[in-house]
Amino acid sequence: MLKDINSPDDIKKLDVKQLGQLCAEIRQVLTDTVLETGGHLASNLGVVELTVALHYVFDRADKIVWDVGHQSYVHKILTGRLSLFNTLRQQDGLSGFPRTEESEYDFFNTGHASTAISSALGIACARDIKGEDYNVIAVVGDGALTGGLAYEGLNNVGETHMLIIVNDNNMSISENVGSATLNMSKIRVGSYDKNKEKLKKFLLKIPLLGRPVYRFLRWCKRQVKMSYGENSYFDKFDIKYIGVIDGNDVSDLVYYLRKIRNNVKKPTVLHIVTKKGNGYKPAEDNPEKFHSVSKGASGALSSDTAGSTLVSLAQSDNRICAVTAAMQDAVGLKSFKELFQDRCYDVGIAEEHAVTFAAGLAANGMKPYVMIYSTFLQRAFDQIQHDVALQSLPVTFLIDRSGLVGSDGATHQGLYDISYLTCIPSMTVWAPATYTQLQQMIEMSQSFGKPLAIRYGRTLSDRQLNFGGRWQVLSKGAKVHLLAVGANMLEVALEVGERIKDVEVVNVTTVQPLDDQYLNSIEDGAVVVTLEENMLHGGFGSLVNGYFENRDVKVLNFAVDKTVVAHASISQQIRDCGLDSESVAEAIESIL
Amino acid sequence: MLKDINSPDDIKKLDVKQLGQLCAEIRQVLTDTVLETGGHLASNLGVVELTVALHYVFDRADKIVWDVGHQSYVHKILTGRLSLFNTLRQQDGLSGFPRTEESEYDFFNTGHASTAISSALGIACARDIKGEDYNVIAVVGDGALTGGLAYEGLNNVGETHMLIIVNDNNMSISENVGSATLNMSKIRVGSYDKNKEKLKKFLLKIPLLGRPVYRFLRWCKRQVKMSYGENSYFDKFDIKYIGVIDGNDVSDLVYYLRKIRNNVKKPTVLHIVTKKGNGYKPAEDNPEKFHSVSKGASGALSSDTAGSTLVSLAQSDNRICAVTAAMQDAVGLKSFKELFQDRCYDVGIAEEHAVTFAAGLAANGMKPYVMIYSTFLQRAFDQIQHDVALQSLPVTFLIDRSGLVGSDGATHQGLYDISYLTCIPSMTVWAPATYTQLQQMIEMSQSFGKPLAIRYGRTLSDRQLNFGGRWQVLSKGAKVHLLAVGANMLEVALEVGERIKDVEVVNVTTVQPLDDQYLNSIEDGAVVVTLEENMLHGGFGSLVNGYFENRDVKVLNFAVDKTVVAHASISQQIRDCGLDSESVAEAIESIL
Repeated sequence: MLKDINSPDDIKKLDVKQLGQLCAEIRQVLTDTVLETGGHLASNLGVVELTVALHYVFDRADKIVWDVGHQSYVHKILTGRLSLFNTLRQQDGLSGFPRTEESEYDFFNTGHASTAISSALGIACARDIKGEDYNVIAVVGDGALTGGLAYEGLNNVGETHMLIIVNDNNMSISENVGSATLNMSKIRVGSYDKNKEKLKKFLLKIPLLGRPVYRFLRWCKRQVKMSYGENSYFDKFDIKYIGVIDGNDVSDLVYYLRKIRNNVKKPTVLHIVTKKGNGYKPAEDNPEKFHSVSKGASGALSSDTAGSTLVSLAQSDNRICAVTAAMQDAVGLKSFKELFQDRCYDVGIAEEHAVTFAAGLAANGMKPYVMIYSTFLQRAFDQIQHDVALQSLPVTFLIDRSGLVGSDGATHQGLYDISYLTCIPSMTVWAPATYTQLQQMIEMSQSFGKPLAIRYGRTLSDRQLNFGGRWQVLSKGAKVHLLAVGANMLEVALEVGERIKDVEVVNVTTVQPLDDQYLNSIEDGAVVVTLEENMLHGGFGSLVNGYFENRDVKVLNFAVDKTVVAHASISQQIRDCGLDSESVAEAIESIL
Repeated sequence: MLKDINSPDDIKKLDVKQLGQLCAEIRQVLTDTVLETGGHLASNLGVVELTVALHYVFDRADKIVWDVGHQSYVHKILTGRLSLFNTLRQQDGLSGFPRTEESEYDFFNTGHASTAISSALGIACARDIKGEDYNVIAVVGDGALTGGLAYEGLNNVGETHMLIIVNDNNMSISENVGSATLNMSKIRVGSYDKNKEKLKKFLLKIPLLGRPVYRFLRWCKRQVKMSYGENSYFDKFDIKYIGVIDGNDVSDLVYYLRKIRNNVKKPTVLHIVTKKGNGYKPAEDNPEKFHSVSKGASGALSSDTAGSTLVSLAQSDNRICAVTAAMQDAVGLKSFKELFQDRCYDVGIAEEHAVTFAAGLAANGMKPYVMIYSTFLQRAFDQIQHDVALQSLPVTFLIDRSGLVGSDGATHQGLYDISYLTCIPSMTVWAPATYTQLQQMIEMSQSFGKPLAIRYGRTLSDRQLNFGGRWQVLSKGAKVHLLAVGANMLEVALEVGERIKDVEVVNVTTVQPLDDQYLNSIEDGAVVVTLEENMLHGGFGSLVNGYFENRDVKVLNFAVDKTVVAHASISQQIRDCGLDSESVAEAIESIL
């Protein structure tokens, strides 16, 4: 059946009773493909019925914004991209997130959480100004509601006609936090009809009368939910609330979505409960494991080093706290949480709060470590500058997934951190290339009394390189100085060093301040080459340019100089950005 | 009485009945001084009683965080800084915001809105880890509750013992927006006893019985408010709610604060209503005008040019929308709002939402202008990068108060925008030096199909300089090229040009991309000097450094190279940062 679905128009030809079969086929494709390609499995298994129902009920003109967007695989499959689905998250293949350039059905790009209500509201307001008539729908997870941006969006909806579908699986990425969502889960538990399936089976077994009674009861329930839904969270925004609905029951979904489409012309929340990993037993049992399925073999990870080092420091130092934003396990805090529960704060998808909260901890004598992926820490730039740096508070940022990130693609690249951190002069920025250096940097941070950021990628080098507070010279040379930031760029530099003679390969461990002593030792007439996985402007290279602006030293900067670096493997992205050893070597040879 | 208050300990010696007199004296000092020095008058007049009551009831060990902090003048007067109060917001004088280096009673610096709940929570959690015992109090305006950060903070309070005082004047800076606060105002109107004063007067006139009856009624009211307060907003966070209380009644405040201090050991909101400008008739009648009292004469403003240009564009172009964050009049939108109400969005103190919402408007065919002060736009760095730039949506940012801002000081400097905008390669950044250029840039932006930022200070130059998309050469010369960004730096460059021979003064109107044609024309051996009110790293100067890295051209960068630039006049700050014509000329002369 799925093979004949070339666009949502084809779904509309089906009878509602056939949709269950369609869902089963989609689920099969999802499981088969994503276990092969890697990607977000559990969340997509959860929204199969929702996505089918949305495209069954709504039209081409209607606009859907998928918050975060990692749950848009089913949407891609149903909007003409089934045949490309096995290219998911690979170079030149389908993105793992909605991309306007991929399909007219992807109306707005997403990647970071909590944006959909705001952007959908903008889309709806534009529609109203233009006097057009269609539906605008934001699909938002319950986890994303912990983000301040989602709250700001809800607070501004006013009387704008739009539909917000809260896809509630009581679990953002690890687990949901915060009192507001706690209260939402109380409502969910109170209203959600857990015995629905049992009752249905029981009634349908009764001859003649069973089915009409079941239908009558279902009708009653639907009337009540459509008209009398109440939720203390959404009511305060004056938004009509309908729920709680079983989000894995496709006929229920079709019923409510049709009712809403035909009758409701004001802001509405449809609160559905879905089961992450639904229909695939291993993912149902362990949805966190199947949140993101990884392709490659699993070896050492930076997060493991960060977590274990912090644990060993915390054992003898009561000041050490960890703050993370809905990524506790991903940043390596699993053991820390078990051992030091009262000093481990998972604040939900709330990066701004994470940083200002850490500033408060530091102001009152604690030694907080804020552990957030590079791309998400962008959200707290103001808090880093205004709450931490201006007061020079000893907050340490452990920034994972810095640099190129591979298959997650454009929205998740960690390419801005050196730029937005080093423009703050009081911010110290270190970048390990090896696991050993990461460990030693965290150990040294313990007695570091000022703001400090340590940035690193998902994996680091196994080389035995230490951190002594200065840059490391790995091979001596006088003509060309290759200054490499981070593990990947160090490998590139070493390859270049093998190809070109008289090259000095330097492991740049401290990005700000620079190693003045080393830079001073460079002789006039030399060539200095900077290598980094960061944007060109404001990066390490431009710090070095500033240093040499009035010296007779040629400087070549290798960095990223385009806004969009699409999904591909990290090594493909390195080549795509011209950061591979061949490109670097050729450029150096051409000026020697 | 006030003269004898050298620290909060002296207030505690007074009888509660004397506090009214103390408040009156403070109000007199406030009005006399702030009308002279300039500063935030209305908000401070509103919190006189609250501040007196806080210091009367709480102790030295207790920690108060003032959200935003512009309402901390009374706190400063009462904590040993009365004699310095006439130095307010002047160089080497008192800051207009809490500063930890000024007093042990300023425990945490503020400036931007919505931070206090998060930072106070951090302080309180640190206290609990250390096993210490004191109160932590966040004083937050109702306007700040529209910020997502405040929501994230509330959502994480959990069971931590802290007091949040919501100072509700139904008006953040211009007017409060958003459904959640609308609902709060319903509660306020419902519960707040408007006839309190009338009733009191009536009862006290009745001989013998009047006073006991009044006291009994007051006692009843207080019991009810202490024990049975309800607020749909705060209840959802499981935070105890007490209110609504008259925040200009010092004895009421002392009563409730004492009760809370002695009896309540869980998270608590005390909801008070204060009158902005209270006790000073002109400010009561026109609190927005007296929100910030300006010292200097009022001449032309960039915001007027921005607003009127946008109005004239919007008259013939229905796509044009304006989005602002609780600063509608300040950014120049007063007329625009009157004329195009349905295309003018004031989203509250919610900069992140403002940007993502604008991205949604642009994705659906509108031409949105996001008008936010430079220092506040920092909060939306991620939204600019992730929601606008990655999709290359035609959102225009009109960034007022860029560069040095004068007496507001460190927390409000607009010194980061060039850095955080130009590290995004798809972002175009323009900087007018004159009102005419600002107008012409906004006119050109109308047909500009990509992300665009226009950054400018509060005032611009009256010179008749046009914008033709390229840099303007104001005086020809070959040896030294002075590249100046913005109005102030252009004046500095012209002064330098008068002092040194053969200097070319250039008005840099486009920061990104650079004017390659001009830069190409610079001859080897020349000296290039960059002048900007932005951080050194990642600023205009480092873009120029990158351009000349392999050319025989000496480059001197003049920019800001320290995190904290304290309050002073703008011209003092220019000198303090070494950006004045004398410093620049001397540096150039030393290398010629």
